[in-house]
Amino acid sequence: MNKVVIFGVGLIGGSFARSLKKAGAVHTIVGVGRSAASMARALELGIVDAIAVAGDPASLAEALHGADLVLLAAPVAQTEAILAAIAPHLQGGTVVTDAGSTKSDVVAAARSALGSKVAQFVPGHPIAGRETNGPDAAIDNLYVGKKVVLTALAENTEADVERVAAAWRACDAIIHRLTPEEHDKVFAAVSHLPHLLAYALVDDIAKKPHADLLFQYAASGFRDFTRIAGSSPEMWRDISLANQSALLTELDAYMAQLTTLRAQLAAGDGAGLEGVYTNAQHARHQWITAIETAEAPPKD
Amino acid sequence: MNKVVIFGVGLIGGSFARSLKKAGAVHTIVGVGRSAASMARALELGIVDAIAVAGDPASLAEALHGADLVLLAAPVAQTEAILAAIAPHLQGGTVVTDAGSTKSDVVAAARSALGSKVAQFVPGHPIAGRETNGPDAAIDNLYVGKKVVLTALAENTEADVERVAAAWRACDAIIHRLTPEEHDKVFAAVSHLPHLLAYALVDDIAKKPHADLLFQYAASGFRDFTRIAGSSPEMWRDISLANQSALLTELDAYMAQLTTLRAQLAAGDGAGLEGVYTNAQHARHQWITAIETAEAPPKD
Repeated sequence: MNKVVIFGVGLIGGSFARSLKKAGAVHTIVGVGRSAASMARALELGIVDAIAVAGDPASLAEALHGADLVLLAAPVAQTEAILAAIAPHLQGGTVVTDAGSTKSDVVAAARSALGSKVAQFVPGHPIAGRETNGPDAAIDNLYVGKKVVLTALAENTEADVERVAAAWRACDAIIHRLTPEEHDKVFAAVSHLPHLLAYALVDDIAKKPHADLLFQYAASGFRDFTRIAGSSPEMWRDISLANQSALLTELDAYMAQLTTLRAQLAAGDGAGLEGVYTNAQHARHQWITAIETAEAPPKD
Repeated sequence: MNKVVIFGVGLIGGSFARSLKKAGAVHTIVGVGRSAASMARALELGIVDAIAVAGDPASLAEALHGADLVLLAAPVAQTEAILAAIAPHLQGGTVVTDAGSTKSDVVAAARSALGSKVAQFVPGHPIAGRETNGPDAAIDNLYVGKKVVLTALAENTEADVERVAAAWRACDAIIHRLTPEEHDKVFAAVSHLPHLLAYALVDDIAKKPHADLLFQYAASGFRDFTRIAGSSPEMWRDISLANQSALLTELDAYMAQLTTLRAQLAAGDGAGLEGVYTNAQHARHQWITAIETAEAPPKD
């Protein structure tokens, strides 16, 4: 690619930039962001070759002129505003993608902001860690072996989807494809619901009058179970609301499961409890084994 | 102590034996168990100095003769039967303790099996890992810096409680004291409920028609959240039933919490969700900080 434009040059956007450069997959990278200090730092670190000002239409137009690919890696709450700002300057040869944790809401925002140009928008979600942020957190191997889910739209051409996929493959990521609805259902179950459940347990305990006594005896099992409750409350509030419908469906299924377990426990139904526990232990063991097999180094 | 008798010489009982020997806190250790192979292995490894046969009254009587301390470290389902078997042979100078994960049920079993001799029974719960088992898993530093909760009875003399406490302190454990009811409420909240919740989530996902797709996208957050669902289903069935009343109370509080969160999510109440998430993140951060401060090496 000749030119890539990245909105937000923190861990996600900055690592995308560094990985593309390392692979020699891009000639010029332009960074765009709201924080002048962050943008200057990204330029200083060599993550981007030039910077543009998000609020200045002339600067944006220049940044987007002749761009092959645009990645939105700013906080997801800014997605619709960024898309609306770039829409007037978006040329026919440019493909836009994003890095948001939810997809149905992003697609709705894109349809609203881009109108008929939504055909140029290929939604994406790189599954990669987010404990640190800012340009200094950006590394050139964040996506090696990691999954990137693309949720292509009916309007997308296969060539445009392939341009996004090729960029992520240049970062050594593995491309998966789901519909936006499938994506949101999957991540509601395996990520968004567990976060809500972990937050709920810690808050439940913290609000009890004898919370200090309880925390005193919490051990390693509790620590691991609640690790994800150490995540950013603002980010997870936004994800919960963005994926409201799928998350409600998963939460209702889980509450029904707890209602069944409660009845078994109250009835002293040891066989019933053991059945659930055994199925869970077995399924988790199979899953862990499959992961370890997939991640094992190739044999000579 | 001159003589200690241990029922069950796996990870918990065997490590107690090895730690006491390392500290020079005991002259003779007698192991008792149902598996002749395990007992022979414990003898071979030098964990115990002699073995007795659980089903043979004469052998049991000889083992208990002149014993200072008896530890029950067999599966908790055997507690009442073991106590009933030793009751006729229990001399006035002997103190009995146990290592079970629940306490109210153990106290009830002890009252039933020991009658007036229950005064010689000091219930205990060492908080230590249990991923491995059998005599070969026993190590001499399992309890270093770990908590042991003693839940003394009104009938116990302070001297008898101190004998149990001193034995665990010889293993470098830290003694805590709670009532049996306090103990069971605390561990229902910070251990038994999280186990039930983790088993419930994995079983819920495993039973969905698209379970394979879901597990494919489960990542490190899911792995940590569900780690405790890898524990023994039989052991956790027994613990759940043994602590039924306290666990039901905690489960009901948690389900009420989920009902509140569900209403907030359905109403799009971002401030409400963020309040719960923020309180949880803050409480967990304080807890982790307190643990790290307590575990930090002393400064010179």
